[in-house]
Amino acid sequence: MAELPSDPFAGLSAVLAAAPVHVDPNRQARKGVPEIVYAAGKPPQLTLRAVRELVARTASGRVLVSRGDRETIGLLRDALGPVGVQVVEAPSAATILVSRADSAPPVQTGGVVGLLTAGASDAPAADEAAWVAQEMGCRVVRADDVGVAGLHRLEAPLRALRAEGADVAIVVAGMDGALPSVVSGLVDFPVIGLPTSVGYGLGGGGVAALLSMLQTCAPGLVVVNIDNGVGAGATAALIANRVAAARKS
Amino acid sequence: MAELPSDPFAGLSAVLAAAPVHVDPNRQARKGVPEIVYAAGKPPQLTLRAVRELVARTASGRVLVSRGDRETIGLLRDALGPVGVQVVEAPSAATILVSRADSAPPVQTGGVVGLLTAGASDAPAADEAAWVAQEMGCRVVRADDVGVAGLHRLEAPLRALRAEGADVAIVVAGMDGALPSVVSGLVDFPVIGLPTSVGYGLGGGGVAALLSMLQTCAPGLVVVNIDNGVGAGATAALIANRVAAARKS
Amino acid sequence: MAELPSDPFAGLSAVLAAAPVHVDPNRQARKGVPEIVYAAGKPPQLTLRAVRELVARTASGRVLVSRGDRETIGLLRDALGPVGVQVVEAPSAATILVSRADSAPPVQTGGVVGLLTAGASDAPAADEAAWVAQEMGCRVVRADDVGVAGLHRLEAPLRALRAEGADVAIVVAGMDGALPSVVSGLVDFPVIGLPTSVGYGLGGGGVAALLSMLQTCAPGLVVVNIDNGVGAGATAALIANRVAAARKS
Amino acid sequence: MAELPSDPFAGLSAVLAAAPVHVDPNRQARKGVPEIVYAAGKPPQLTLRAVRELVARTASGRVLVSRGDRETIGLLRDALGPVGVQVVEAPSAATILVSRADSAPPVQTGGVVGLLTAGASDAPAADEAAWVAQEMGCRVVRADDVGVAGLHRLEAPLRALRAEGADVAIVVAGMDGALPSVVSGLVDFPVIGLPTSVGYGLGGGGVAALLSMLQTCAPGLVVVNIDNGVGAGATAALIANRVAAARKS
Amino acid sequence: MAELPSDPFAGLSAVLAAAPVHVDPNRQARKGVPEIVYAAGKPPQLTLRAVRELVARTASGRVLVSRGDRETIGLLRDALGPVGVQVVEAPSAATILVSRADSAPPVQTGGVVGLLTAGASDAPAADEAAWVAQEMGCRVVRADDVGVAGLHRLEAPLRALRAEGADVAIVVAGMDGALPSVVSGLVDFPVIGLPTSVGYGLGGGGVAALLSMLQTCAPGLVVVNIDNGVGAGATAALIANRVAAARKS
Amino acid sequence: MAELPSDPFAGLSAVLAAAPVHVDPNRQARKGVPEIVYAAGKPPQLTLRAVRELVARTASGRVLVSRGDRETIGLLRDALGPVGVQVVEAPSAATILVSRADSAPPVQTGGVVGLLTAGASDAPAADEAAWVAQEMGCRVVRADDVGVAGLHRLEAPLRALRAEGADVAIVVAGMDGALPSVVSGLVDFPVIGLPTSVGYGLGGGGVAALLSMLQTCAPGLVVVNIDNGVGAGATAALIANRVAAARKS
Amino acid sequence: MAELPSDPFAGLSAVLAAAPVHVDPNRQARKGVPEIVYAAGKPPQLTLRAVRELVARTASGRVLVSRGDRETIGLLRDALGPVGVQVVEAPSAATILVSRADSAPPVQTGGVVGLLTAGASDAPAADEAAWVAQEMGCRVVRADDVGVAGLHRLEAPLRALRAEGADVAIVVAGMDGALPSVVSGLVDFPVIGLPTSVGYGLGGGGVAALLSMLQTCAPGLVVVNIDNGVGAGATAALIANRVAAARKS
Amino acid sequence: MAELPSDPFAGLSAVLAAAPVHVDPNRQARKGVPEIVYAAGKPPQLTLRAVRELVARTASGRVLVSRGDRETIGLLRDALGPVGVQVVEAPSAATILVSRADSAPPVQTGGVVGLLTAGASDAPAADEAAWVAQEMGCRVVRADDVGVAGLHRLEAPLRALRAEGADVAIVVAGMDGALPSVVSGLVDFPVIGLPTSVGYGLGGGGVAALLSMLQTCAPGLVVVNIDNGVGAGATAALIANRVAAARKS
Repeated sequence: MAELPSDPFAGLSAVLAAAPVHVDPNRQARKGVPEIVYAAGKPPQLTLRAVRELVARTASGRVLVSRGDRETIGLLRDALGPVGVQVVEAPSAATILVSRADSAPPVQTGGVVGLLTAGASDAPAADEAAWVAQEMGCRVVRADDVGVAGLHRLEAPLRALRAEGADVAIVVAGMDGALPSVVSGLVDFPVIGLPTSVGYGLGGGGVAALLSMLQTCAPGLVVVNIDNGVGAGATAALIANRVAAARKS
Repeated sequence: MAELPSDPFAGLSAVLAAAPVHVDPNRQARKGVPEIVYAAGKPPQLTLRAVRELVARTASGRVLVSRGDRETIGLLRDALGPVGVQVVEAPSAATILVSRADSAPPVQTGGVVGLLTAGASDAPAADEAAWVAQEMGCRVVRADDVGVAGLHRLEAPLRALRAEGADVAIVVAGMDGALPSVVSGLVDFPVIGLPTSVGYGLGGGGVAALLSMLQTCAPGLVVVNIDNGVGAGATAALIANRVAAARKS
Repeated sequence: MAELPSDPFAGLSAVLAAAPVHVDPNRQARKGVPEIVYAAGKPPQLTLRAVRELVARTASGRVLVSRGDRETIGLLRDALGPVGVQVVEAPSAATILVSRADSAPPVQTGGVVGLLTAGASDAPAADEAAWVAQEMGCRVVRADDVGVAGLHRLEAPLRALRAEGADVAIVVAGMDGALPSVVSGLVDFPVIGLPTSVGYGLGGGGVAALLSMLQTCAPGLVVVNIDNGVGAGATAALIANRVAAARKS
Repeated sequence: MAELPSDPFAGLSAVLAAAPVHVDPNRQARKGVPEIVYAAGKPPQLTLRAVRELVARTASGRVLVSRGDRETIGLLRDALGPVGVQVVEAPSAATILVSRADSAPPVQTGGVVGLLTAGASDAPAADEAAWVAQEMGCRVVRADDVGVAGLHRLEAPLRALRAEGADVAIVVAGMDGALPSVVSGLVDFPVIGLPTSVGYGLGGGGVAALLSMLQTCAPGLVVVNIDNGVGAGATAALIANRVAAARKS
Repeated sequence: MAELPSDPFAGLSAVLAAAPVHVDPNRQARKGVPEIVYAAGKPPQLTLRAVRELVARTASGRVLVSRGDRETIGLLRDALGPVGVQVVEAPSAATILVSRADSAPPVQTGGVVGLLTAGASDAPAADEAAWVAQEMGCRVVRADDVGVAGLHRLEAPLRALRAEGADVAIVVAGMDGALPSVVSGLVDFPVIGLPTSVGYGLGGGGVAALLSMLQTCAPGLVVVNIDNGVGAGATAALIANRVAAARKS
Repeated sequence: MAELPSDPFAGLSAVLAAAPVHVDPNRQARKGVPEIVYAAGKPPQLTLRAVRELVARTASGRVLVSRGDRETIGLLRDALGPVGVQVVEAPSAATILVSRADSAPPVQTGGVVGLLTAGASDAPAADEAAWVAQEMGCRVVRADDVGVAGLHRLEAPLRALRAEGADVAIVVAGMDGALPSVVSGLVDFPVIGLPTSVGYGLGGGGVAALLSMLQTCAPGLVVVNIDNGVGAGATAALIANRVAAARKS
Repeated sequence: MAELPSDPFAGLSAVLAAAPVHVDPNRQARKGVPEIVYAAGKPPQLTLRAVRELVARTASGRVLVSRGDRETIGLLRDALGPVGVQVVEAPSAATILVSRADSAPPVQTGGVVGLLTAGASDAPAADEAAWVAQEMGCRVVRADDVGVAGLHRLEAPLRALRAEGADVAIVVAGMDGALPSVVSGLVDFPVIGLPTSVGYGLGGGGVAALLSMLQTCAPGLVVVNIDNGVGAGATAALIANRVAAARKS
Repeated sequence: MAELPSDPFAGLSAVLAAAPVHVDPNRQARKGVPEIVYAAGKPPQLTLRAVRELVARTASGRVLVSRGDRETIGLLRDALGPVGVQVVEAPSAATILVSRADSAPPVQTGGVVGLLTAGASDAPAADEAAWVAQEMGCRVVRADDVGVAGLHRLEAPLRALRAEGADVAIVVAGMDGALPSVVSGLVDFPVIGLPTSVGYGLGGGGVAALLSMLQTCAPGLVVVNIDNGVGAGATAALIANRVAAARKS
């Protein structure tokens, strides 16, 4: 709790250096979801301060950073590596970064998350979802580029999801957003629609995809916001982990 | 061309009684599309005046009236029947009405229009399209309620469209609007997406369906506005009739 | 597959009487979700025809009808009761109706679905969700009117959800839509946000509620469309039933 | 179908290198439309991989790439030229690129596509449409800059379309989007409205143009999304080619 | 200026009976536009009180009432007739009503306002504009139903506007809203676009028409809001009257 | 906390009768704002149950009901009057209703709230605000119909607000929403803009008014949602009462 | 009218070099408005070609270019100066450029256009309007930065407009867009509202300003689109020039 | 009041150099709010001219500049420092800059403004609000990063606001915008919701946050536009200063 002194010019900068990060280190325990720092629009130093504080306060040192730019990722790697924190960056376009203690790989829960994308352009959001689910201990079964423009490509992946025992599936699509409805009409596990910002013109940037998923005629489909791979991955993992825990008990 | 006299109270009503209908009786010849009077929001007397004038000026007496309410349809039937004009009303929820001389049934062109609906609620817009296409001389091959919530229902109708030699297909869908993209990915003739106002919530009233069709990932799909069965039917018939004319020549 | 004859006036009505219902009686087996007929905007006779056909083709006779008006519900009750189908209607404002054979009460799966509403006006959507989940065999643990305008009311219900072993929670809210984000920040099971059309002005009719849920800062929250109790209930039950099945195995 | 290994950091990159392109090489045969890779937002290497795979799997080697940036186009030219694939780029602002085997120029079908633009700024979308239609074997009859601000400019082009026997016309317009409605009121072949993102302020970026076309009072006009030259060209060619095939039979 | 007493229950009603009408009787002198009471949503008694007060304070007794329902118009006629005020109601669908002293017909200014409508459904907004312009002393030269679906109908009216010496034209259109842009490209006087709420689907209710007019490619076109006949008529009359006054000076 | 029994048909109705009202009787003490029941969309019986429970639990028996329809208000009056609760209804179009014990008139706090409306149609929202402020003990100084179409009407009311010592002003406007910005540029106390749903066409229903207030160029203006008289009145009273309390201390 | 040869790769570039500019050199004579080339989004060479052709075909050589970037303006200056065309660029932020023969300054018509801006940020749109009006021969009487945040600043400019005999006024405002309504309530000549894209947040970019003007409660106000100084200036000049011509006759 | 000469090219630049800044130096006295120059989109020289003029005309020399870019801030510092004006810049991301005479620090009024942010990304808008409130003499009590994703973090700050005697609170949130409603349900002083542009996807850029606040179910919450820290700070200070003045009197 910071009280601003009456001389704003001296006091404010002191307050800002200390105050604006108020991290929530117990989220993993309370929620089953690791802390995820949203780096877009944050000065890199602010992101570093948050990650550093969270690493210090948690046993696993596990912190995810989403939507970090080049500068932020470089800063974290340089600052955290020397103090014994492993910083891992996704090789694809997904701007997800994980820091964790060397001794804390994700514990495999046995949960299985299916992941399908409609097009190759949907990869960044799908990657974001995959990383979050994997850091939460799930196995991810994935097939890409199987959208409705050529529906015959969908058969094999659906058979595979069933064969692998997927507890839930994330279906990723931009443009017309039709794939999640199609999949949800065919499978007997819950489906999370993840619309992406692929597409231009009216309804572009993912708006048509999201609206079409919200309007689905196939009950069993729920959605997250456009490009919100973090939300899709975290919820899918919560579902799969709960099923896996029941299997073990 | 009406000039309003300077005393508006006497003059205006005289003008209004004579002026506001300025019909286009040569549309059939110029466009290949019969005149279609849009009755929504028009006083029934105004619709009657337009239909009467068009009937008088065209050889076939063919005039279509869309979106007429009960009162309008009754008025037309009562006023036109006695003067030798056949007034036919759709038995379904479609508010299409055709007037034509007894001697002027539609001439069969040989054009074939496919028509698929995603759900039973899409029937009114589909009926509107079917009537217009049929009044323009096409044969309509139709299957209803084959949406993506149960995609296996789509196989037989698609085989039938191919067997019947459809020149073009109208695919009607509300809610998620996914069916036209799925169909367009599978067939080798042009597809016209006809979104309907079925659905509620965000993207409801046909907005999501229309946007999803505009964002289609399957080239070969064009669209008309929500519930615009007239536009879909007229364009499909223009296409099919052009193909049929080429077949004959 | 219906082919329209070239005389539209006789043929079309015959087609319409037979064609527009193309039901999907195996959905329960394929999806784990019973067939749900969306009655809004459908002529009552069309809804009856669909229900009758589905009842005839399924062993349980279980069919849900959502958003039926007074006339539709009365028609179904009158027509189905005499042929040995139990027709049950929700006592609240929810326009859900279930038909089922007398010998087919829902089989209890052991799945537990939590259900919280922000205000008393949210009841209809919540009821819709509860009925679907219960027909799918789940136990529903519910508390109403615990929104953020008086957050202290939330403590007891959250303790109860945990005590009862909820596998998933549906959190229902209109207006500001803040409750699902608050709940999702506090619990370790997945949360489905169900926005309702309560509220007026800009963002009214549920738009602000839905957008706020889509923008949640608490990972683990997924959403359905405004007032889509059917979708929320079906997905929640799919999740809970999968966990329950794992518990039993 | 790719299964992600439980160690995400090693496995994910391997998966990503192999998986996200799942091309559809039979589209030309199934749809009559060549495969078109949408390059916007894709890393250039991903586009190259897709094109390379498609070229390898199709006899003609015909692949279109839309919305490629400078870097993507350069990469394709450098990588495909040496292996005997001809890479051709539009000289105008249209970001369309065609690769094809030297032995596979487009086969002339005899279909004729009319193409009108309202203003010189509409050229990029018009070019995109023209290229697609020409790669599908059509002859394109075109006139530019004939919008409603000076309607007298429209007469000669309309006479020419008729003289050349256009089977269908694409009418391209931004800003007010009025030209397609005007043309559709005057001609007896189907018209495809192609709105462009020209214009600023409320309704800018093509929104007013698209909405005005959707609201057309001239039946016979269908639309594609803003700047979607690919969709307009592909559908126009499907129509014209079907007519041309009928002429030949 | 009313102060609410501390006992709201007695005081408020007294205040409301006296306070909420605060009329502006000098608008005619200050603005050259008569007072126009907007009756939509007002209790009829409130409208009557406003009209009565304005009639009492102005020499001409001229007050226009727009958008009055049946009940309001009846009330005004009954209450004002007996006290020597002439109440005149439009015979068409326009809900405009004029009260004026018997001795105060509009003084002819010599200003000439052209008025064109795209379709017969546009009549109510056009009538509203015509009445306002005529009460402000202008002559209105009008032609109806000359929209772009059949552009040949436009020639005669445009010649007439020129022949009659129109100082300004109001062009009324719903749906695609294309007519005002077409007219503005052809004439050398200012054009006021008056969009109407005719049309359904996306961009319906006049939105597409308004946006298309705002995006016009023909400089010289300004607009008012959807169905705002009062605004179009008043501004056109201000322009025409200013020109007429200059002609006389 | 209600647990739904496994037999939904018997249990659900029992739950609904008991559960959905979960009132917050300490709001007056905690917030300084009385409980306000939003009756729109609620069955009258549900509103009555909420009011009855609140009356029973609070000393003053003060409960406000907003947006009750005729049936709700009649039901409350009939049910509460006999048990010694005074039910008072606004004489204007405002659908506010207050119940309170006979012995609990509002205690005058000394706070002064100014209230200005742009037009007579804005009265219902203004009345709602006035009633809430008065029930919270404030004196309301009000002037109606002083909008920017005749700005000279504003001078006297502004002088009066200053003379009466207004601590805060609510400025109510629909259509263009310009009045709050004008007032906020002239006075030295905070202004709350209350947009109303007066107006039609694009930006109608209060949207333009709200947006214009949000975009104000005059710092010192805050807003509530369209027609939210309750929110404006409650916040104004919180401000005025805080100032009044400071004056007394 | 250009026919595309069947070999697109050679032919298309030839066509594009010749075809896409189809200028309208008689607009000045037909409309009373000079040709104005909209340069945004056009390649500079395309703009130059249009200007060059127009200069060659009109006696005055007068061509306006709006929204040209630095590169376009430089290119025009370099290319046109040597061939005897005077190229003049606005010194302010307005991106208007005029080319004209040395012997063709604007002929003063005697028309007077008032011009007011709400804030200094509105200058670019106001400048665009001023230049167009002046090139059409009008005198512009202007005052800046007189918005409603300090309404007292408005008195002197309004007196000046009246003193100078303004025939019409353009009132420019962004953000709340309140100034045009205020001015229109006070003056007896027509007012053109010119909204600007100044402002951020909801309703930003000029949307709130435009909507507020469309919703004006002061009849006599018409609008153009956001930042459309060209449209405002051209229409104002058409009005003023018509009045001036009447004064002279 | 500037009259543009008939030769626009010479005259316009002279006018523009002198005219477009029309400052309002008495705002501090009239409104209690210092003059705040909005620098976004203004050429730096224009901002400097406005600040210089205001500094010259006010005793305190106090001028705030919001949203100045690097170049503007540098220019002001360089130009004003040498003439004895202290230029102070916020150390955080807030682009606020204050100029004031050395002898004019803000006079402490005794008003207390609470300030809470939901996340660290909300800092820039919060800083803007804090600076304005402090320049108006208030003490600011602040806590950051206490959003609803972890609601337990909120307890201590709320206790502190009460302990410090906050007269009003500004609650800053992006994304779901839930925090202001939660806070407003718990405290007895007025709350100003300040939505920020944090967030992506549908409802992103602050739209969902703003709409959720407008739809609040907790009376006592008013809002300003997205990122409008200036408006929130100024209004909060007006409230707090009025309370403080009453305490002193």
